[in-house]
Amino acid sequence: MLESALASLCEFLRFPSVSTDPSRTASVAECADWLAAQMRLAGLSAEVRPTPRHPVVLGKNEHRPGRPTVLIYGHYDVQPEDPLAEWQTAPFEPAIRDGVIFARGATDNKGQIFAHLQGVAATIREHGELPVNLLMLVEGEEEIGSPNLELFLRNHREELRCDVIAVSDTGMVAAGVPTFTYGLRGIAALEVRVKGPTVDLHSGIYGGTVRNPATVIAQLVASLHAADGRVAVDGFYDGVLPLETWEREAWAQLPFGEGEIMAVTGVSALAGEAGFTPVERIWGRPTAEVNGLGGGFQGVGTKTVIPKEAFAKLTFRLVPGQDPARVLGAVQAHLRARCPEGVQLELFPGHSGEPYLADPHSSHGKAAQRALQRAFPGGQVALIREGGSIPIINTFKQVLGVDTILLGLALPDCRAHAPNENFPVANFYAGIALNQALLDELSRL
Amino acid sequence: MLESALASLCEFLRFPSVSTDPSRTASVAECADWLAAQMRLAGLSAEVRPTPRHPVVLGKNEHRPGRPTVLIYGHYDVQPEDPLAEWQTAPFEPAIRDGVIFARGATDNKGQIFAHLQGVAATIREHGELPVNLLMLVEGEEEIGSPNLELFLRNHREELRCDVIAVSDTGMVAAGVPTFTYGLRGIAALEVRVKGPTVDLHSGIYGGTVRNPATVIAQLVASLHAADGRVAVDGFYDGVLPLETWEREAWAQLPFGEGEIMAVTGVSALAGEAGFTPVERIWGRPTAEVNGLGGGFQGVGTKTVIPKEAFAKLTFRLVPGQDPARVLGAVQAHLRARCPEGVQLELFPGHSGEPYLADPHSSHGKAAQRALQRAFPGGQVALIREGGSIPIINTFKQVLGVDTILLGLALPDCRAHAPNENFPVANFYAGIALNQALLDELSRL
Repeated sequence: MLESALASLCEFLRFPSVSTDPSRTASVAECADWLAAQMRLAGLSAEVRPTPRHPVVLGKNEHRPGRPTVLIYGHYDVQPEDPLAEWQTAPFEPAIRDGVIFARGATDNKGQIFAHLQGVAATIREHGELPVNLLMLVEGEEEIGSPNLELFLRNHREELRCDVIAVSDTGMVAAGVPTFTYGLRGIAALEVRVKGPTVDLHSGIYGGTVRNPATVIAQLVASLHAADGRVAVDGFYDGVLPLETWEREAWAQLPFGEGEIMAVTGVSALAGEAGFTPVERIWGRPTAEVNGLGGGFQGVGTKTVIPKEAFAKLTFRLVPGQDPARVLGAVQAHLRARCPEGVQLELFPGHSGEPYLADPHSSHGKAAQRALQRAFPGGQVALIREGGSIPIINTFKQVLGVDTILLGLALPDCRAHAPNENFPVANFYAGIALNQALLDELSRL
Repeated sequence: MLESALASLCEFLRFPSVSTDPSRTASVAECADWLAAQMRLAGLSAEVRPTPRHPVVLGKNEHRPGRPTVLIYGHYDVQPEDPLAEWQTAPFEPAIRDGVIFARGATDNKGQIFAHLQGVAATIREHGELPVNLLMLVEGEEEIGSPNLELFLRNHREELRCDVIAVSDTGMVAAGVPTFTYGLRGIAALEVRVKGPTVDLHSGIYGGTVRNPATVIAQLVASLHAADGRVAVDGFYDGVLPLETWEREAWAQLPFGEGEIMAVTGVSALAGEAGFTPVERIWGRPTAEVNGLGGGFQGVGTKTVIPKEAFAKLTFRLVPGQDPARVLGAVQAHLRARCPEGVQLELFPGHSGEPYLADPHSSHGKAAQRALQRAFPGGQVALIREGGSIPIINTFKQVLGVDTILLGLALPDCRAHAPNENFPVANFYAGIALNQALLDELSRL
């Protein structure tokens, strides 16, 4: 049966369900229909529910009173495949090399969500039914920021009432190490524009007396960090929850740290906030990052201008205890206080998301860890946080009032969002076992 | 005769002699042929001399022993007309509005060099000959950095032997104010690249521990200036010739300063090195400018990456006493010392040019000032330096061993290199008179 499940996953991966690309709207819809049919094959009832853009696929078993209700969330849409030339094999023609599936969506998120569905199918085949009430909600807009999911949750709050949500869209610290994620960073975005003269000026004719917007943006960006790597914005760290001793001790034991990060990123040394290990900085400490910087001449060679404007696109990763709006307020005050005369400062706050922290020792958390232990026998479950953000988890909490358990199957070198995205066949099979164990463990609570 | 001269200038301006554009090579050549024909009409002998790219037009009268030899230099090539949409009338269809000629090249340099040629023509018509031995060298590659002119000078050193060179490619401090330029800034270019991870990284997954190249480039650029506006590079000011008291006093009297600079640039306040006026900062003090800055996401919205690299394109304007190579060495040492570990710094020194300073009280300088006084009666000759660079002047000095007198006819709002470039008809006529007076004054030395 595993080989047939793998063949079906390859079918799933062949749909170019790129949600951001209007020319692929039909492919996204075909993928949703295919997925609903797969849910029915597994033994669930399934519907394709329209939204203003891409549909939600909703699968269910027959719910019975007295059993816990588990909602499994995932997405069937994928990132664009650009740059196409860097793929070893075509992104929508899955290829298996050395036990690894290469395709867009292999890890993020088709491979992971389909493992859950195949676990459901296997359990129903084996036992004739599931031990829990199941809701399987798979959306088609995750890669474009889930613009219609919150309204969908609100409109179907009764139908989606559940006790816990399970998501496999996070990572494993290393191959074979079962990993439970109990925290995520939040995010707050700010675009900074500095405007100077009305047109680009000749830097010979005016250089020395007209303030250069590119110099100012550099000075503002440089002012965000102190020499010790801390963010130098007054109030930035207000409320930050300190790391607990058990976390720091547990993280120090993981097979993931300076060497692994240097190897996968290709840098010759790590950096960051003094007083914390690399892993602590990513998982438990807030940051200020420049995602884009620009101004003036971008071509080859030299053009001697004082540019009329320059910009920086900033995002701040936030940890529990920080509030995106408060952080953006502090940063804007910092920049306004430091912008010199002779230029105009324009600030555009962007999207934001709250950080997330759950108790890994809750009954649901412990059940998830037992399931991970069963799916990856022999390894000790790693309790981690992650540096990224999954804003939808906070929406689940707000709208449905329940916590999410994060059981990641992605490896550090899975190349999600990048060319040659991949997912080991072993992780797909382990994911099937994980789902079976998870539903069993949750049914016993 | 003036109206016929103006009509001929308009013919000159109709050639799209854009030297950088390979599709206009034929137009550049046609323009050179036309100019040689105009020199012959004026009474000179003229030849179109080929170079590896665009030809030089060389005109002469009959040289006689015992007279000074004057070389008038200019260029018949022009900048590209982009952005075309911002022109009020077509760039290569000269239009006269309110006594001002609008066309690409009107000021830079067709209007100015053609005024000299018409002055020569008028003198020959009036007196049957010129009072000096004349060489008129008009090149077609100035706007692409005169790549073949130095070799041309070296190959024709004997033929081009002269006592003084006159160039009208600089500015007047204000309309009607005769202006003699005796100094120019030099230039040294440096491109700075900071490379970090092998690919753009997810700023959630790695943010906080992988050093961000965009942050580093901002820190490096910010490190170039101190709070008082001075360039904060050790040794940068070594050897800088202080401004002389007479210069500072004379410049303070000119109708060009803070108000005029703010009006023409549209900025709300000026800035720069403490202890100097805006004009002193431009004409007599060296600078560090960012001409281009870039890295990471350049599109609309947010993309949460740590960019794999970032760059800054820097130029330094230099003043007499500074050496481009020494300055570039000091800046590179400064940047290397400040680049943190975890990123690679790549430095690409670019083109450079020496600063230029002549004695305005030399006999040639005084003759030029008398000529200016005659061409613009009633005004007092302004003795200025300029902030830009004309590298060819140093080449003249090195190869031909003579000084250049700079008699500018460009107004501050002439929009050279920009849309709606313009040149007042009055300045064209004054330029004709200036040439006649100049040759007369130089013949008396």
